[in-house]
Amino acid sequence: MIADRYDERPEETVTMYGATGTTIRWLINKDNGARTFAMRRFEVQPGGEIPLHDHDADHEIYILSGEGIAFTEEQEITIKPDMFVYVPPNEAHGYRNTGDSPLIFLCVIPLLE
Amino acid sequence: MIADRYDERPEETVTMYGATGTTIRWLINKDNGARTFAMRRFEVQPGGEIPLHDHDADHEIYILSGEGIAFTEEQEITIKPDMFVYVPPNEAHGYRNTGDSPLIFLCVIPLLE
Repeated sequence: MIADRYDERPEETVTMYGATGTTIRWLINKDNGARTFAMRRFEVQPGGEIPLHDHDADHEIYILSGEGIAFTEEQEITIKPDMFVYVPPNEAHGYRNTGDSPLIFLCVIPLLE
Repeated sequence: MIADRYDERPEETVTMYGATGTTIRWLINKDNGARTFAMRRFEVQPGGEIPLHDHDADHEIYILSGEGIAFTEEQEITIKPDMFVYVPPNEAHGYRNTGDSPLIFLCVIPLLE
């Protein structure tokens, strides 16, 4: 069993094209033995966003703090703490912080290879 | 994309042998399209526990609130909000709430089969 605080993991800037004010920490990954899925923690600063993008991996998300929107080409959903979001494979999606504090969420993805 | 509050999902008592004061909500599961892993939210009341048990599924856990211990046959780790825990496959593990408020955590598991 491995346990640690989230801030013991390095914080990296999300450099995806168009992303602003967003960092990621990989909490649980192949490095600590995970086999089929990985847990990451995102922080999006006020006004920051991850723009629409898509990929094979589906997402399971849980909002820890802050407020924002999760959007697809057809939907825009207000997200708040204690909400979960499921993004199916290949559905274009993005997130934006519409509040005045960091939007923080967990995002679990399959380890595809 | 599907989004909802955790409390829109039914709360079920954990009936595993020896478990006390513990409920589970399945947030994301095959029902909403998940293919390879599922997100659940546990609440363990003060004094409650899930005793040592093991299974093929590994766990990726994130503590949302409360305080307790996660234990194996060899380890006992204090768990607090904003900690994550990785439990490898087939390692016997359990949890106990040692605080005076609910111990709440997410637990993501593979969908085996």
